[in-house]
Amino acid sequence: MTLIKQLKNQDEFVGFYLLKELEVKQTNANPPKDFLDIVLADATGEMPAKFWDASQTDKETFFPMGVVKVRGLVQTYREKLQVKIMQIRPAKEEDGIKLTDFIRSAPISPNDLIHTIQSVIAAISDDEIRSIVRFCVGKVEEKLESYPAAKTHHHAYFAGLAYHMVRMLEIGDFLCKQRSFLNSDLLKAGIILHDIAKPEEMIAQLGIVSEYSVQGKLLGHISMASNWITEAAITLDIALDSPKVLGLQHLVLSHHNLGEWGSPVQPQMAEAVALHHIDALDAKLQMVEDALNTTPETEEWTPLIRGLENKGIYRLRL
Amino acid sequence: MTLIKQLKNQDEFVGFYLLKELEVKQTNANPPKDFLDIVLADATGEMPAKFWDASQTDKETFFPMGVVKVRGLVQTYREKLQVKIMQIRPAKEEDGIKLTDFIRSAPISPNDLIHTIQSVIAAISDDEIRSIVRFCVGKVEEKLESYPAAKTHHHAYFAGLAYHMVRMLEIGDFLCKQRSFLNSDLLKAGIILHDIAKPEEMIAQLGIVSEYSVQGKLLGHISMASNWITEAAITLDIALDSPKVLGLQHLVLSHHNLGEWGSPVQPQMAEAVALHHIDALDAKLQMVEDALNTTPETEEWTPLIRGLENKGIYRLRL
Amino acid sequence: MTLIKQLKNQDEFVGFYLLKELEVKQTNANPPKDFLDIVLADATGEMPAKFWDASQTDKETFFPMGVVKVRGLVQTYREKLQVKIMQIRPAKEEDGIKLTDFIRSAPISPNDLIHTIQSVIAAISDDEIRSIVRFCVGKVEEKLESYPAAKTHHHAYFAGLAYHMVRMLEIGDFLCKQRSFLNSDLLKAGIILHDIAKPEEMIAQLGIVSEYSVQGKLLGHISMASNWITEAAITLDIALDSPKVLGLQHLVLSHHNLGEWGSPVQPQMAEAVALHHIDALDAKLQMVEDALNTTPETEEWTPLIRGLENKGIYRLRL
Amino acid sequence: MTLIKQLKNQDEFVGFYLLKELEVKQTNANPPKDFLDIVLADATGEMPAKFWDASQTDKETFFPMGVVKVRGLVQTYREKLQVKIMQIRPAKEEDGIKLTDFIRSAPISPNDLIHTIQSVIAAISDDEIRSIVRFCVGKVEEKLESYPAAKTHHHAYFAGLAYHMVRMLEIGDFLCKQRSFLNSDLLKAGIILHDIAKPEEMIAQLGIVSEYSVQGKLLGHISMASNWITEAAITLDIALDSPKVLGLQHLVLSHHNLGEWGSPVQPQMAEAVALHHIDALDAKLQMVEDALNTTPETEEWTPLIRGLENKGIYRLRL
Amino acid sequence: MTLIKQLKNQDEFVGFYLLKELEVKQTNANPPKDFLDIVLADATGEMPAKFWDASQTDKETFFPMGVVKVRGLVQTYREKLQVKIMQIRPAKEEDGIKLTDFIRSAPISPNDLIHTIQSVIAAISDDEIRSIVRFCVGKVEEKLESYPAAKTHHHAYFAGLAYHMVRMLEIGDFLCKQRSFLNSDLLKAGIILHDIAKPEEMIAQLGIVSEYSVQGKLLGHISMASNWITEAAITLDIALDSPKVLGLQHLVLSHHNLGEWGSPVQPQMAEAVALHHIDALDAKLQMVEDALNTTPETEEWTPLIRGLENKGIYRLRL
Amino acid sequence: MTLIKQLKNQDEFVGFYLLKELEVKQTNANPPKDFLDIVLADATGEMPAKFWDASQTDKETFFPMGVVKVRGLVQTYREKLQVKIMQIRPAKEEDGIKLTDFIRSAPISPNDLIHTIQSVIAAISDDEIRSIVRFCVGKVEEKLESYPAAKTHHHAYFAGLAYHMVRMLEIGDFLCKQRSFLNSDLLKAGIILHDIAKPEEMIAQLGIVSEYSVQGKLLGHISMASNWITEAAITLDIALDSPKVLGLQHLVLSHHNLGEWGSPVQPQMAEAVALHHIDALDAKLQMVEDALNTTPETEEWTPLIRGLENKGIYRLRL
Repeated sequence: MTLIKQLKNQDEFVGFYLLKELEVKQTNANPPKDFLDIVLADATGEMPAKFWDASQTDKETFFPMGVVKVRGLVQTYREKLQVKIMQIRPAKEEDGIKLTDFIRSAPISPNDLIHTIQSVIAAISDDEIRSIVRFCVGKVEEKLESYPAAKTHHHAYFAGLAYHMVRMLEIGDFLCKQRSFLNSDLLKAGIILHDIAKPEEMIAQLGIVSEYSVQGKLLGHISMASNWITEAAITLDIALDSPKVLGLQHLVLSHHNLGEWGSPVQPQMAEAVALHHIDALDAKLQMVEDALNTTPETEEWTPLIRGLENKGIYRLRL
Repeated sequence: MTLIKQLKNQDEFVGFYLLKELEVKQTNANPPKDFLDIVLADATGEMPAKFWDASQTDKETFFPMGVVKVRGLVQTYREKLQVKIMQIRPAKEEDGIKLTDFIRSAPISPNDLIHTIQSVIAAISDDEIRSIVRFCVGKVEEKLESYPAAKTHHHAYFAGLAYHMVRMLEIGDFLCKQRSFLNSDLLKAGIILHDIAKPEEMIAQLGIVSEYSVQGKLLGHISMASNWITEAAITLDIALDSPKVLGLQHLVLSHHNLGEWGSPVQPQMAEAVALHHIDALDAKLQMVEDALNTTPETEEWTPLIRGLENKGIYRLRL
Repeated sequence: MTLIKQLKNQDEFVGFYLLKELEVKQTNANPPKDFLDIVLADATGEMPAKFWDASQTDKETFFPMGVVKVRGLVQTYREKLQVKIMQIRPAKEEDGIKLTDFIRSAPISPNDLIHTIQSVIAAISDDEIRSIVRFCVGKVEEKLESYPAAKTHHHAYFAGLAYHMVRMLEIGDFLCKQRSFLNSDLLKAGIILHDIAKPEEMIAQLGIVSEYSVQGKLLGHISMASNWITEAAITLDIALDSPKVLGLQHLVLSHHNLGEWGSPVQPQMAEAVALHHIDALDAKLQMVEDALNTTPETEEWTPLIRGLENKGIYRLRL
Repeated sequence: MTLIKQLKNQDEFVGFYLLKELEVKQTNANPPKDFLDIVLADATGEMPAKFWDASQTDKETFFPMGVVKVRGLVQTYREKLQVKIMQIRPAKEEDGIKLTDFIRSAPISPNDLIHTIQSVIAAISDDEIRSIVRFCVGKVEEKLESYPAAKTHHHAYFAGLAYHMVRMLEIGDFLCKQRSFLNSDLLKAGIILHDIAKPEEMIAQLGIVSEYSVQGKLLGHISMASNWITEAAITLDIALDSPKVLGLQHLVLSHHNLGEWGSPVQPQMAEAVALHHIDALDAKLQMVEDALNTTPETEEWTPLIRGLENKGIYRLRL
Repeated sequence: MTLIKQLKNQDEFVGFYLLKELEVKQTNANPPKDFLDIVLADATGEMPAKFWDASQTDKETFFPMGVVKVRGLVQTYREKLQVKIMQIRPAKEEDGIKLTDFIRSAPISPNDLIHTIQSVIAAISDDEIRSIVRFCVGKVEEKLESYPAAKTHHHAYFAGLAYHMVRMLEIGDFLCKQRSFLNSDLLKAGIILHDIAKPEEMIAQLGIVSEYSVQGKLLGHISMASNWITEAAITLDIALDSPKVLGLQHLVLSHHNLGEWGSPVQPQMAEAVALHHIDALDAKLQMVEDALNTTPETEEWTPLIRGLENKGIYRLRL
Repeated sequence: MTLIKQLKNQDEFVGFYLLKELEVKQTNANPPKDFLDIVLADATGEMPAKFWDASQTDKETFFPMGVVKVRGLVQTYREKLQVKIMQIRPAKEEDGIKLTDFIRSAPISPNDLIHTIQSVIAAISDDEIRSIVRFCVGKVEEKLESYPAAKTHHHAYFAGLAYHMVRMLEIGDFLCKQRSFLNSDLLKAGIILHDIAKPEEMIAQLGIVSEYSVQGKLLGHISMASNWITEAAITLDIALDSPKVLGLQHLVLSHHNLGEWGSPVQPQMAEAVALHHIDALDAKLQMVEDALNTTPETEEWTPLIRGLENKGIYRLRL
């Protein structure tokens, strides 16, 4: 099977691909004719494609985010490669295709990420903190296996949120060893809880966010997580005004640091200051890494990155 | 008894006053001698006072926010009036003094304010909304009789918070009549709940805030109220993801309008937009009214008011 | 006659509509042919339309903002409805068509709005204030019957400015009753004068602003109104430095509150503070109401609204 | 007579000085005694002074901004020089003292400045523009001989405003020669009118502003000048909507460039862009020059200057 | 030869033009055919053009920024003029064409500009300052003959940078005469050095910047010039910590005035304050002049100008 | 010897202390008498002290930042402890006093810090990068043993700068292991060079900054370090436009991330993004640690910390 990034002009090929985008459009002919305007994708990249003369059945058969088998020809249109689709059908169960083979995803498997997170939770020494963390993680356990950390900003791919957590936990672990005044239980709990409501804030499929949920827009993931901690404490019979509940809610509420970035309060505990900066460090470095990985080696500069002051990253070759 | 605002230079007088501030200081003499540096207050104003040669007993007898009986002489020091205290003793039970006579307070009695608020709650037609509002108000019912709405910003006096609610409810009632697309239940509930956690965010006595509570600093009244609604819903067995819970939490969370003013989300319901602007209108007009009331009629300009772009208000005489 | 919002795919229909937009375009054919690219509108909505094979006469007959009689067929193009025009002619006098039937306009008739405004003016007790207000209103009396309050921001429709005034006068009236320290003459005058120069700042037809006037760009409506008050005072022989002239000019100049919003001075009179907040409250609530009214009932969210922090409004269904 | 900047510790001296500041204070003695806490000044600097044991007559005789004859002794108090006043009396007519000898003032005489401004006005070729400028200058002609350009920001001394105008006119003249697209009449008129209402915005004596006028606070000098141009046009029978009136008002209204700096509109004519930048250039360079002149030659750095990003200026010695 | 701004609909013409933009595109035909989508330009303006049925040779012959001889027909497409190219060939050496005849450029010849700059340098009285300036100018001497001062902001044309320098030198010269506290050597040197690294920051051809260099993006012209001064001092054996080196580096580093505008330090020398304001004055007035010059006389308003608060400039006709 | 933090009211004590501040003041007596107003300090804290009746010799003997032997009595003045000094003399060589025993300093010895830094430099694999780093470190080698990282912001104590470097190097080392796309040589070099010019930007003694140097104010440490790299490259004969020089200068120039924070360019290399966030993380966490360490264990809140959004840090006790 041919990977997208290997396709060259005039190649004829057969393979399975993700229908990342699909729209029915009309030609300029009179009368206009319907065709399918498509973006084919696999984990190595994506390419526009056209399926001319789409029948009514075709229009009802294909839908975005499905996997299809395609026979196509690579052409050049306006100096860019484009696939002319000659045959197309949906993948069948017997094709043995795994959808996740076709999408960008974290470099560590969801299973391993979840396993790491669960191990860290198990190692939290304080029973109440551990129980609250478990309760909140339990609300999104399944989604954690696939959800991205954001719509476009950073870690915007399959299992990106869990990957973000695991990397932050590694940094947090290092810092707790470097600086003994940090409480390891609080910092780990803060890292796991800080974005825990994101899977309910956004609606995503295969690691790609299509939109924000109503709750996500009206409350935001920060307040949602704070409410979940309240719910956890009531359910687990932990006093709502106990230092633990207060501390965990503060960690979540303050992790965006400033009001204009969405935090109603600013960090006022050692672990809250650490949490914010670990979050920033991991998110920004991941933006850099992802931009470098998805930019051809031959390019000196990555595209501009919104979250990095809208600058590109330069590959300095020493 | 002589009211503070009536005292003139060289007056000798006797009366009861609030010890609004009290500090033990030392004279420049060698060796230095202790004296009490005092601010006397009643509902009409306040004036600095000195009690020279304070004995050890004196230093242990008097404390801020108590009422005292004073015999004093008004003098001029650096072109300002100041009281030289000749005799001073704490008020006794048999003096029949009511502390609230000596402090600034809302122009409507706390009882009447609470009664109005309770009537409005009773008139909320939706059972679940009414119950949630009652639950939250129940958490601060007693404090609502005395708490100010803020430390200094606006309504910073006895029962100021309840007064702020009542005036806002009047405006809200008018607007619901003027514009039928506003849901009256939601708007009333939003008005009552928007600052409901302030009595737990601040520590106040007699309507004067001394500091913010730990919870107030780490969570802020906005997130606290959101948590209370979660708690109310669990207690009252109302689904946490029901539109009512969502709507009430959104009203509370968004009422400061912008992130830099403390709201993690911006108003996205008709009633939330109304709530923010009613809040602003009432708070700003009350700042104006209070500034005019506490500035002598003979002054053209009030002092500068932080919440009004740091401008004074001019008394235009037509 | 068929209303626009009732048209469905494949409908054939005849009716009168406003030519809201009209552009002569060329087809991709070789040689290209001219056609009319049109937006048809009535008070219920608008729809794109094409009139193919436009003759030279057609191109000279039709112009934007005119009413036409159309026989058309509704088709679907790129998943949106579009009218293919089969016959089209300008409306004639004998058709008895009223242009204002085809445009968005305030829910109260211009006559009634003007009448209300005139009654409020008549009720201003101070002779000089009343005369100045009358002088300024007199400069735009005719335009007041049709002008919007803004290009797109709020009340952007026929008689929108007069409607904005009337609603603000209602709120102002309520507030003067609620708070006796507000001077009713000043507040009413301020409400009527605050945007009074807008009809000279903008160039509008049928409630739709096409552009700003030269004077509007170089001076702005705020300074223009201030100049008009100067002119009124000279004409009416009222001292230019009298408190009344000063007060009215201050109300106008400060009503945008901040320099970055266009006010050269900030509100420094009780009525100026009230005016700014009544203006904000009415404008923002009207944006909400208009967005809800023009969004299909079936949509949960209105489009994003620039003046509301670029958020959409959610229809919470209790 | 000894200049202030020449006084040294232990000098005994006699001379005339300005009483720049004067306050009656009390000693710490028991009972306290009144003394005069004074700042003596001449054009070379200022120095604190004490007149102990002030009698009731003394307290009624002396007032700030008067000239006095003083016999004094220079002492050191807290490492700074201070005058102990032994004798003091008000200057008499026969002393032949000119008040303006004792204050900071523009380096060119008011007469010469006014003469230059009048010559420039006379050279404006357009009759109507010249008349309007003359009308406005006529409203403050007398004050122009003494008023500063600002309270503290720049040119804050006797005749500072006229000096600012004259220097700007020189730069404007140079630029009109360098760039022929600038209209010399408009630019000259704009320079003369841009701050013309400042003498009515502020209340000053001897070039020192004590406070802003009511009109100054409620309207601001920018809107006041715009109103004056309206008044001038009506008085001179020039059409209010003529390009000349419009242009002059635009120049005045836009000269602060941004809304947050007080301009309701931004520069939109070539001369308005020039005016703003000439104003900035002259004001900033004057701040630098004044700071250097009033800082001893031996100091490397001037004090911090608010209008220059709160930086000091360094004397680079090549 | 016909100038672009003189071409009218239906004109047939022959002439030499710059190929300012050139892209190979495909028609909508099936199969699509290649055509050249072109922008023709000369010093009077530019116009879109199509060369249909481009052969493979054509596609390899023509390139942007070359001069071509064209026979064409002016047509109207979507209400705009467009050239249909009938014949096209590259200019040959024997055509005697000067590329610079076809581009926008400074109104003074590069030779004269460079000559003026060299004369000013020669007139710097301090040997070390003069040598450092010469060293830095030497690094870009050739490019100074053609480089613009910016990509789009101001002076964005052939020799724009040298023209900017010369005009600033004129203003600087005037100011040094007007204000004797300014050091003429430092101010001249600052004007010449402030943008001296721009030719290495940007990649330009014929006065048109295509992109920023790697060094330009990673260091910026301000830091590059500072480094050059270090290099000059080492090369010329001038102490790196001498006041001259320090002063020149400060002038360069601070000339954007604020951190958000790119200056790591704020102006703290008299000449640095002057430099910033001369730079602003010249750049802004040039934006105005260029906008007026490139807008048809019949238009009242120029297009919006980003560097002038995004406003257009109005041609006031007195 | 008694540590400052152990002194209690009425203690009589003898010991060696640092004269952290010293000013000659006058009493209010008539005639006033000189006394020494002093702040005594050791590594555990500081306390105000008075030495009454200072003789002329005393005034000439003592100076700030010297060590003295004191016999004193602890008293209470305005509710704070204060030392009445009975005897005082400068420390003598034979007292065997080490100045650094009396000041706050990094928790690791300067020697060890320098040793660590030198080892890291030695481990840089690229010869040119290593040489440039060595050259720059060589310019401040001696000062690195004692200089703080900032005046007040963070690491404001003896050897604070070296300590900041070492901690950042540890974090950098961890991140290079966690993320292989980071170039370890560049990141280490960036960490060592980013603040390397601070010892020349500030004037400090014993880890306490008294003021900024002229060069520090006019150039800033960021541009100074960039110039040093230029100097290093010339000295070491490395091409000024080589990727290594470019990369190191970019790391230094961009490490404050934003223009308003002092960086003329924003991070555009992976290591530059990492450097900025490692710097922020280490600085903020150190502010937290230092605030907690210098706040008594009994206090729940540290004082407000400017660099942490002006918030205090709360000690959450689980």
